[in-house]
Amino acid sequence: MGVLTSQSEDFPKWYQDVLNKAVLAESGPVRGTMVIRPYGYSIWERMQAEVDQRIKACGAENAYFPLFIPMSYFEREAEHVEGFSPELAVVTHGGGSKLEEPIAVRPTSETVIGEYMGRWIQSYRDLPLLLNQWANVVRWELRPRTFLRTSEFLWQEGHTAHIDQEDARRYAVRILEDVYHDFMVNVLAIPVVVGRKTAKERFAGAINSMTLEGMMGDGKALQMGTSHELGQNFAKVFSIDYLSDKGAQELCWTTSWGVSTRMVGGLIMAHGDNNGLQVPPVLAPTQVVVIAIKDDPEVIETAGRIEAELREAGVRVRVDTRVDTSFGRRATDWELKGIPLRIEVGPRDLAQQEVTIAVRATGVKSKASLSGLSNKVSETLSEIQSKMLAFAIERRDERTAECSTLSEVVEAAGSGFARIEWDLVGEKGEAELARSAITVRCLQRSDGSLPYSEDEPGLVAYCARAY
Amino acid sequence: MGVLTSQSEDFPKWYQDVLNKAVLAESGPVRGTMVIRPYGYSIWERMQAEVDQRIKACGAENAYFPLFIPMSYFEREAEHVEGFSPELAVVTHGGGSKLEEPIAVRPTSETVIGEYMGRWIQSYRDLPLLLNQWANVVRWELRPRTFLRTSEFLWQEGHTAHIDQEDARRYAVRILEDVYHDFMVNVLAIPVVVGRKTAKERFAGAINSMTLEGMMGDGKALQMGTSHELGQNFAKVFSIDYLSDKGAQELCWTTSWGVSTRMVGGLIMAHGDNNGLQVPPVLAPTQVVVIAIKDDPEVIETAGRIEAELREAGVRVRVDTRVDTSFGRRATDWELKGIPLRIEVGPRDLAQQEVTIAVRATGVKSKASLSGLSNKVSETLSEIQSKMLAFAIERRDERTAECSTLSEVVEAAGSGFARIEWDLVGEKGEAELARSAITVRCLQRSDGSLPYSEDEPGLVAYCARAY
Repeated sequence: MGVLTSQSEDFPKWYQDVLNKAVLAESGPVRGTMVIRPYGYSIWERMQAEVDQRIKACGAENAYFPLFIPMSYFEREAEHVEGFSPELAVVTHGGGSKLEEPIAVRPTSETVIGEYMGRWIQSYRDLPLLLNQWANVVRWELRPRTFLRTSEFLWQEGHTAHIDQEDARRYAVRILEDVYHDFMVNVLAIPVVVGRKTAKERFAGAINSMTLEGMMGDGKALQMGTSHELGQNFAKVFSIDYLSDKGAQELCWTTSWGVSTRMVGGLIMAHGDNNGLQVPPVLAPTQVVVIAIKDDPEVIETAGRIEAELREAGVRVRVDTRVDTSFGRRATDWELKGIPLRIEVGPRDLAQQEVTIAVRATGVKSKASLSGLSNKVSETLSEIQSKMLAFAIERRDERTAECSTLSEVVEAAGSGFARIEWDLVGEKGEAELARSAITVRCLQRSDGSLPYSEDEPGLVAYCARAY
Repeated sequence: MGVLTSQSEDFPKWYQDVLNKAVLAESGPVRGTMVIRPYGYSIWERMQAEVDQRIKACGAENAYFPLFIPMSYFEREAEHVEGFSPELAVVTHGGGSKLEEPIAVRPTSETVIGEYMGRWIQSYRDLPLLLNQWANVVRWELRPRTFLRTSEFLWQEGHTAHIDQEDARRYAVRILEDVYHDFMVNVLAIPVVVGRKTAKERFAGAINSMTLEGMMGDGKALQMGTSHELGQNFAKVFSIDYLSDKGAQELCWTTSWGVSTRMVGGLIMAHGDNNGLQVPPVLAPTQVVVIAIKDDPEVIETAGRIEAELREAGVRVRVDTRVDTSFGRRATDWELKGIPLRIEVGPRDLAQQEVTIAVRATGVKSKASLSGLSNKVSETLSEIQSKMLAFAIERRDERTAECSTLSEVVEAAGSGFARIEWDLVGEKGEAELARSAITVRCLQRSDGSLPYSEDEPGLVAYCARAY
């Protein structure tokens, strides 16, 4: 009899329960918006820090462009406006009067950033131009779900301009691999499947969308991030051009790429269990909680000393001395919040110069000596990180079925991913799968690498139900 | 013949020139919005990091509340709606259809955060509740000016709920002193005047607004940040109440406080000179630039080695090896950007095992030995920080006149701040000064401390023209 609905009983209800009981987020007053509470936000802050550092290492610089975009900007790129019009929130009044031109609240910033890139780029010496922004965006959602699909969400959106197609492609792939893939595998411990979107699933205005797809606890897919080659589509309409070293006026090739607060939802669903959330140690805002079991001066003092020692050793740690609340309730609460490691300090253990260590991922408790505790903790944290990734890889592989017919795909997508030759699916098969709410998540070459076109022979399609 | 309009000729035009030439920011496509370019944004990121760390040290936690607020929320607090209605941007259409209730784009979040605090706070054990968010807000501006007054700006807004008035006041003052005052003096090197706003200048819905006023290069004031006691005004209308330890249902006392991207404008105008921006070393995203003067292998190699050494020593440093651009042009450019310290590496100096050090704040160049360079640099950076603050204090004090009549105030406010007994001004004098575009920036006790009420005897009023 847990505090949460069990995953097997009702996975969506389990997800809602985790949001509430781990105090992560709740619905905002305007339909589809969300309030991110401090613990949920601290997880997002850690994601931001890790992603931001990787983006900067790839040479992109942060900037900030306005929330408000003239409607006329959207109308310049035909596919883009078609894709985003149904989702726009529109400001018609400002400062007490009706506006001459209605304004869109940004759903993404290719248009406004394209406009400024066009002004800033003069010569080949200004290229590549590598920009990123951390911002909120608004896309009207008819079926909102906290973190996964909200009318307003937080994200980073990168926008770059390049001298030729090859340089643009190389950079879009670099972001996909060195920023997103590295972050998702090594920080989130989610072994995403990386591939190319089909034409049907492509970003509105892109010539190539690449994606990272995570497997959730119920076997469904979650698109965790995307990186797009935009070709010259936006360069044409926003005059993003440059004088080449040969003196010719040339159009740039642009890219865009983003990850969002949706990853918090992915984290919950990829690692959560019937006891709540599980946060991988590398990500966790709090890696270790030191619990004083009893109101005993030696216990309290020792718990404080352990906290200080661990902090000194670079561990993100907090101490729980709320001894007026029962130990059991506190332990359950830290489990719900998914703190990777608990150190329980009680008088009986202390008499032996020991504490009890409880690992959230395995539920295993063991004794550890007070001397050398911080080394033990650091080692255990890295073991937990590896185990969480290994477990997620195992599940992904177990639940990925090799299929050779569409009906096998439908069967397999009931509990996980289906791999099938893309030639056996094609646009027609894609439409047929859609009737069973199954989508082609991405295409890969048979060696797992990224295809340059969906017309390459021998591609493999990953199919799944998705959030 | 500088690259900038001189300050004495046209200060506002000088400000615009600095924004453009130091590549800090420009206007957005929708009236009153701005585009913050990478160098401007990197300054804001450093401000965020320094302020965020101080806020967290005061126990507040970051969260995120929605951009969209139902119009009905504003209507609950009479003064608040009256103050903000004229500045609201209103969304009337979403997802392709007209909305049933129009939605305000947040100009500030007391209302929506008040609503949630009302739901979350049950008992005195939940208090104080200390929240902060980093967000964008929108206030329709008729006379926009980049960074200083924009329709959209970035800020942090803190919102807290307390058990009684004393605790609320203490916390609002703590944020004012330990976060804002400390940051502005010790990081921005701007010796702000701290005091209480008059009733006329108070935040819409507050019972007490406290402010930090910086003196700009032209002697005008800039409100750099505010901290408000909201009394029980929002607690009443959003039912922010708690069960006391005596079992009684009591209303909370709330506060709010914020600083914004306006501080970037303050930084420019407080420290800038006819050669451009000047960034204090503690704030500067780049503290030192190492310039390779000539395309000479030893020069390039040494510049790189100095960069590595300084980075190792914790200095934020970059190297400039663009030897195909003239040295003079590059030096001017780094001056424009206000990098506190330049190290110039050239073959003649190297022959003596020396480099040339140029201090932006004083314009003084000197030779420094390659050995022990990083110690020399660290010392010089702290000297620059002290000098910039000392210079700003000196200017503030020189340009603050003791006055005893309103006409003296009008005279003095032409070039700086005027101090006058508040009893000699009062509401009537305040209205009279307004006709000369002069406002009472804040009230202090004669010892400089914060008054609890504007009716206290013996208060001093700081009057000035302001941005």
